[in-house]
Amino acid sequence: MSVKLAVLGHGVVGSGVVELFYKNKAKIEKRAGKELDIKYILDLRDFPDSPYKDKFTKDFNDILNDDEVVSVAECMGGIEPAFTFVKSCLEKGKSVSTSNKELVAAKGDILLRTAKENNCNFFFEASVGGAIPIIRPLHKCLAANDIDKVMGILNGTTNFILTKMKDDNMNFEDALKLAQELGYAEKDPTADVEGHDACRKICIISSLVFGKHVYPKSVYTKGISDLKLCDIESAEILGYSVKVIASVRKLENGKILPAVMPMLVPLENIISGVDDVFNAVMVYGDGIDKAMFYGRGAGKLPTASAVLGDVINTVQHDNTVVSQTWESVENNDFVAPIEEFKSKWYFRVPLDCKKVKTESYTSDDGISFITPKELTFAEAAEKIGELNALAYIPVLD
Amino acid sequence: MSVKLAVLGHGVVGSGVVELFYKNKAKIEKRAGKELDIKYILDLRDFPDSPYKDKFTKDFNDILNDDEVVSVAECMGGIEPAFTFVKSCLEKGKSVSTSNKELVAAKGDILLRTAKENNCNFFFEASVGGAIPIIRPLHKCLAANDIDKVMGILNGTTNFILTKMKDDNMNFEDALKLAQELGYAEKDPTADVEGHDACRKICIISSLVFGKHVYPKSVYTKGISDLKLCDIESAEILGYSVKVIASVRKLENGKILPAVMPMLVPLENIISGVDDVFNAVMVYGDGIDKAMFYGRGAGKLPTASAVLGDVINTVQHDNTVVSQTWESVENNDFVAPIEEFKSKWYFRVPLDCKKVKTESYTSDDGISFITPKELTFAEAAEKIGELNALAYIPVLD
Repeated sequence: MSVKLAVLGHGVVGSGVVELFYKNKAKIEKRAGKELDIKYILDLRDFPDSPYKDKFTKDFNDILNDDEVVSVAECMGGIEPAFTFVKSCLEKGKSVSTSNKELVAAKGDILLRTAKENNCNFFFEASVGGAIPIIRPLHKCLAANDIDKVMGILNGTTNFILTKMKDDNMNFEDALKLAQELGYAEKDPTADVEGHDACRKICIISSLVFGKHVYPKSVYTKGISDLKLCDIESAEILGYSVKVIASVRKLENGKILPAVMPMLVPLENIISGVDDVFNAVMVYGDGIDKAMFYGRGAGKLPTASAVLGDVINTVQHDNTVVSQTWESVENNDFVAPIEEFKSKWYFRVPLDCKKVKTESYTSDDGISFITPKELTFAEAAEKIGELNALAYIPVLD
Repeated sequence: MSVKLAVLGHGVVGSGVVELFYKNKAKIEKRAGKELDIKYILDLRDFPDSPYKDKFTKDFNDILNDDEVVSVAECMGGIEPAFTFVKSCLEKGKSVSTSNKELVAAKGDILLRTAKENNCNFFFEASVGGAIPIIRPLHKCLAANDIDKVMGILNGTTNFILTKMKDDNMNFEDALKLAQELGYAEKDPTADVEGHDACRKICIISSLVFGKHVYPKSVYTKGISDLKLCDIESAEILGYSVKVIASVRKLENGKILPAVMPMLVPLENIISGVDDVFNAVMVYGDGIDKAMFYGRGAGKLPTASAVLGDVINTVQHDNTVVSQTWESVENNDFVAPIEEFKSKWYFRVPLDCKKVKTESYTSDDGISFITPKELTFAEAAEKIGELNALAYIPVLD
């Protein structure tokens, strides 16, 4: 008798899970050590031409009440009804693997606790970095480390746009339009372009690494919609690449400081070479120094690969709780305000500014330079006023 | 009662394991879900000034016959007595985590089978890529993929030497001397410089990915001791970085082709930016497209971090076999000969050569160019003779 699985949602990721599962079924079963089959696919739409049409159901209870189903892949997205469905599955002892970052960022603590109480697993490798193994390595492989910083490129859409701006001299609007045409950006690109997507992912990483639930609303988040092509060009001449960096670090006062914002990355930093829709995450620990994970951060099969990796794991560890957990918290007062963020800054100031004493690059758009010293956000704000700065972007150290 | 561990060997890695364990003990115990302690350290030398001097023993049987010891870290290196010690531990049901690539490359199949038969685990994350999580991601996170190619930089010593040659215009001998002074190369640097170390690592990866034990002697291995500075310089002008690439790919005829050799890596490939002692491994699969893992490939604490990550895993999964296995084989006839390796080539030919029709770079040392077409090793050999080539290096696609 094969072990029965269910897939919630038959959109891009859900259909990818089904496709990849049947493509590599023999290999997957060998690795799981068990015969496996997908018994149900939940979707409200009809798929009369699907080769798996007999597996579709519109009623979640078919899955919930079928004791044969031991492992569920949630690929619906959004908080509800995903949260209710996932929680009900866990309460019945069915392990769940999800690609839903919004769900994990909002309700991860509750779902991890529910899994633990019911002796099953809640996995979410696919929710951060798509195909890139990052959650399991953070939790398992780097378990002996005191991790004090994680940073990286966690949104493929904005990275694609920035790459097009840099390499093809496109302005933001044209690059966004191209991303939409290629299917890399949604019709309403707000969640990607304004940094909300990357914010959810750095919240999940922060919660996992520092052990307490970090909510998106407590994280400073800035997107790229007001980035000018001339600043990307000037940055390159000064030896930097502009990237949307999601980061979290532990401060000396014990608080943590997560943030999402465009930053200048020195060209000698390997992160600066991560282009197009690729993502990368750099982890700093006292044992490893630093390690980076790189790959496709989104897309049908890459995300499906991560979901299925988790599903295989739930089946191998039937009745063993191997999930990570983190604390629920009443507030996020262990999260430091962005004013404490300290870095060097890129400034572009008007051509008539006489106060630039450091190495700079001058074009029709102004004088661009990097501050020699690190400034907090508060100190930078003062400088911006003083110099009438036209653009200002923090620099990654 | 705490769970008791033992560490075999108190050299660089073994002492790092003890140091990192006690530094992060609270964190490690939280992740393991159990109290842990190191009960024995095996070494034939005396360490009268060690804070752990009461844990030392010179008699392996103290460890083997102590039923309290459930998990052992093997950091001795070499095949014997490591093999005998590890096998005896596994036969007694004690899980073993090792950093010993020579042991895994030579005897991995036997030790994995022994672990499985005795319901315990044999882990070897630290044997490939030092701190970089690669074995567990390959086995776990990418389990839903059909992986057809793995390639990367698996030796930090040669990568350091090549970086110094490129960035500081040092010749091979001077760069090697510097590596030795800094402790990155051993007094007898043969294993690193001639590619044997990288060869063992690609054997381990090949065995894991393709399921059959691949022996070092069946893998084409070429080092960097005859690399000329002028070829590194010419390669850079042509848009390439010279790296020692360890790779394995599945051929259309079903065989696999592992190899270790210097190759030209296009500067737009992120692998070309992996410098100094850092390692990186790129994995290609049908779900993920490609994913890369980057970090310190050697060193006391990075390697200790990987060993301890495994140890934590053995303790979490007490009495569950989660190790990967691969088949023992009588011969390596599923390994294709290097003659089938096909790629473009870098050639440097004498200044009076009239046959160069493609884009080239000319210096006092000759005319350097990349062949427009891919050539097998056999075809390249013919070309080398025809052109009286002074240097020839395959190009990574």
